[in-house]
Amino acid sequence: MVVELISVGTEILLGNITNTNAQYLAEKCAALGLSCYHQVTVGDNEARLCAAVRTAIDRADVIILTGGLGPTEDDLTKETVAKVTGRRLIMDERSKERIRKFFEKIGRTDITENNWKQAMVPEGAIVVDNHNGTAPGLIVRIDEDENTKHILLMPGPPNELYPMFENDMMNYLQQISEKVLVSKTVKITGRGESWVETEIKDLIDTQTNPTIAPYAKTCEVHLRVTASADDKKTAEKMIRPVVKELKKRFGDDIYTTDEKVKLEDCLVSLLKERGWTITTAESCTGGLLAGRIVNVSGASEVLNSAVVTYADEAKHQLIGVSKKTLKEHGAVSKKTAKEMAKGAAKLAGAQVSVSVTGIAGPTGGTKEKPVGLVYIGCRVLDHTEVLECHFTGNREKIREQTVTRALDFARRCVMAYEV
Amino acid sequence: MVVELISVGTEILLGNITNTNAQYLAEKCAALGLSCYHQVTVGDNEARLCAAVRTAIDRADVIILTGGLGPTEDDLTKETVAKVTGRRLIMDERSKERIRKFFEKIGRTDITENNWKQAMVPEGAIVVDNHNGTAPGLIVRIDEDENTKHILLMPGPPNELYPMFENDMMNYLQQISEKVLVSKTVKITGRGESWVETEIKDLIDTQTNPTIAPYAKTCEVHLRVTASADDKKTAEKMIRPVVKELKKRFGDDIYTTDEKVKLEDCLVSLLKERGWTITTAESCTGGLLAGRIVNVSGASEVLNSAVVTYADEAKHQLIGVSKKTLKEHGAVSKKTAKEMAKGAAKLAGAQVSVSVTGIAGPTGGTKEKPVGLVYIGCRVLDHTEVLECHFTGNREKIREQTVTRALDFARRCVMAYEV
Repeated sequence: MVVELISVGTEILLGNITNTNAQYLAEKCAALGLSCYHQVTVGDNEARLCAAVRTAIDRADVIILTGGLGPTEDDLTKETVAKVTGRRLIMDERSKERIRKFFEKIGRTDITENNWKQAMVPEGAIVVDNHNGTAPGLIVRIDEDENTKHILLMPGPPNELYPMFENDMMNYLQQISEKVLVSKTVKITGRGESWVETEIKDLIDTQTNPTIAPYAKTCEVHLRVTASADDKKTAEKMIRPVVKELKKRFGDDIYTTDEKVKLEDCLVSLLKERGWTITTAESCTGGLLAGRIVNVSGASEVLNSAVVTYADEAKHQLIGVSKKTLKEHGAVSKKTAKEMAKGAAKLAGAQVSVSVTGIAGPTGGTKEKPVGLVYIGCRVLDHTEVLECHFTGNREKIREQTVTRALDFARRCVMAYEV
Repeated sequence: MVVELISVGTEILLGNITNTNAQYLAEKCAALGLSCYHQVTVGDNEARLCAAVRTAIDRADVIILTGGLGPTEDDLTKETVAKVTGRRLIMDERSKERIRKFFEKIGRTDITENNWKQAMVPEGAIVVDNHNGTAPGLIVRIDEDENTKHILLMPGPPNELYPMFENDMMNYLQQISEKVLVSKTVKITGRGESWVETEIKDLIDTQTNPTIAPYAKTCEVHLRVTASADDKKTAEKMIRPVVKELKKRFGDDIYTTDEKVKLEDCLVSLLKERGWTITTAESCTGGLLAGRIVNVSGASEVLNSAVVTYADEAKHQLIGVSKKTLKEHGAVSKKTAKEMAKGAAKLAGAQVSVSVTGIAGPTGGTKEKPVGLVYIGCRVLDHTEVLECHFTGNREKIREQTVTRALDFARRCVMAYEV
C-alpha cells in the first residue's frame, strides 16, 4: 500500500518550525511496510489544500493529514476533506462531551463557541479520541475506482499526534494491511554504518522476509528487522532467528533490541543492577554528558554529583589532576583523562566515573593535537581505561559524538563487571 | 514572486532524517519576501521527480531543488531538470578542475570515473561553486508563457547547502526580485509571544513596509523586521526607526538585534567585557546549562568549572548548602537555590554563579511543589537573586525552558552592573 503525507500549516511554509511530524510518520509508515513516495506541505488555504488532497487520492491508498484541526477560522483541514469527499459535517456528541471534560480537567472555564467546531466531524467518519487535546482524530474512507482510500486526519502538536498514532491509528493501518508487520530494532554502537552493512551483506543480499534496514544515527547504527505475516505471532517467530543471528555477529556492540531504550537508559539500568553510582568530569562537553544521564527519569538513584572542569586550574583543584601531568602531557592527553576519572570518582564517592577532555574547535587545534581529538576516561572501582577518539565536524557535532561515545564506553566498562 | 521547495531523497521519505533543509530554506525565502505555498519531498525516482518539477514550474516562479546531486546512479536531480527543460548535459571544465583540487585537498587519490559526472551541467546553466564539497550548484532559467522561471539546484548536505545559499544563491534571488529586501531580527526573552504581540499590535495592524513578523522560540520571541526598497541603503534606512521603536518598547528584554547571536553568546560577551568568570550549580538540568555556555567558542575565558549537584548530599558537601535548609525548605526551594549559587561561586572562585533546582518530572511532583516548579538563583559578586518559575511540558521541555530562562536571568543580573 502507498501512503502520502500532507502537512498542513503556514508556520511550516514560513520556516517557523521544522516539520518533525513528517519524519515521525514517515519512519512509522516505513516500519508498517507502507511505501511513501510523496510528502507535501501546504498552508491553511482551501483551494491549495483541496488540490493536494485530490492529487493524493489519485496516487496513494492511505493519505495522512496533520495539522489544521484547531478551533479557529484558519483551521480548515476537516472542512476541506469533507468537501473533497462529499460529506457534510455533523456534531459528534461523544467528542463534544470529551472536549467539555478536557476543559474541565485543565481548569478552563472560558470555552468559546468556536471550540465546539472541533466536535464537528464528516458524516460516516471513524472518530478517534484525543487524550491530550481537544481536536479528535478522524478516519474517512472513500471508494474510488473499486479501491478503498483511507484518509487519516490528526492534530499537529506532537504531544497529541504521537500518542494518537501509536494507540489508535497504527492499529487501523495494521488492520487494513493485508499482512501484519512486526519490527524489532537492534541498536548498535561503536561501529560505522558501512562496517555494519559489510558484516551483514550476505543477510541483506538474500533477504526477502524478514527484511533488515540500517539507519545511521550519531555514533550508532540501528538495524530494523521487519517481518510480514498473516498474524502477529508468526511474524514475531520469523524475526527471532534474525535477531539471534545479529546478536551473534555484533555481540556487545548491541546495547538493546527495544525501540524505546536509549543509550543512557541502558547505562542507568546497568548501574542500578549493580547498585552503583556514576559521576562525570567534563572538559570540552561542558556538562552535556551529565545532562544526558540526568535526562533519564530516576537518574537520581545513580548520579549524585558531577563536575565540569574546563580550565586546567579546575582540573587540578577540584579533581586533583597533577600539575606535572598537565604541564608535561597537556590537558588533552591520555594521562589527564585518567587522572580526571580517578579524581572525580573520589570527589563524588562513585563506583563509576567518566572523564572527557578534548579539542572541540574551531580554534585550539595543533598539528600534534588537532581539532576533534578527544580522550574519554572511564574508571570502574579501581580500574581506569582511556579511549582515544578522532572526530570530525563542527564544534557541536564533535561534542555530540563525544557524549554518545562516552556513554557507550561507560556501558562497556560497567558491563565487564558481572552483577 | 512565488517559490516552491522540492527536497529529493529517499532517506527523507523513509523517515531516516528530518528535513531541516526545508525549514532553513523556507525561513530564508520568507526573509527574502518570497511566498512559499508548497513544499514537496520526492525520492530518487525519475518519473516522480519529473512530475514534481513540471508541477512546480506551473505554479511557482522560483523552484529550489535540494539533494540528488551526488556521483552515484541514484542521483538524478540534475539529469531530470535537464530533461524537463530540454537541455543536454555538457562537461563544465571549471567544475572538473575544482573537483580535482577538492579531492587533492582532502587527500583522496581514489577518484573514480563517476565523480566526473558531478562536473556535467545542463547547457546554459549558471554554475555556482561548491566550496565545501564536490557537486556544484546550478541555476537553470527557462521562459514559460512570457514569464521567466528560475530553477535552483543545490546539494543536500547542510554544510554544503547553507554556505552556498548564503554566499551565492541569496544574491541571485535578491537580483531577480524587483525589490531589495533587508531584514533585522530583534530577539526578545522573558516574555510570551501573545504579550509581545499585544505590545506591538498597533505597529502590526498598520504595517505595510517595513513588516514585523513574530517567531516563537523556547522562552524567546524573535521579531523579524523586513523592509523592501529599490536599494539596500534605503531599505536599511527604513528599518532603523522601527528597530529603535522596538528597543524603546522592550528595553532590556531585547538581548540582540544580530541574527547570528544566541543568548549564550550574549552572556559570554557581557562577562568578557567585565573580565568576570561564571560557574553553575545544576540539579534537574544536570549539566545542560554549563553545556550551553561551553558551546560558545572561547568560553574558556569565562568558565573554569561548574558542578552538577543532583543529590541533597552533593549540594551539602560540594557547595555547602546547609543541612538545615535542605531539611526545612527542601532541595527545591528558594533558599536552597540561593545557597547553591553562593556555594558554587565560592568553590569556583567566580564573580557570577547560576544555580538551578527544580522538578522536571514526570515523577517527584507534589501538590505544594508540582512538576515544572524550578528555582533559578544568580549571584553576582556578593548579591544573590532567585527566580521562581512554573514550566509546563514533559521532562525534556521543562529542562530546555529552564536552561534558557537561566541564561537570560544571568544576562540580566550581570547587565545590572556597569562595565
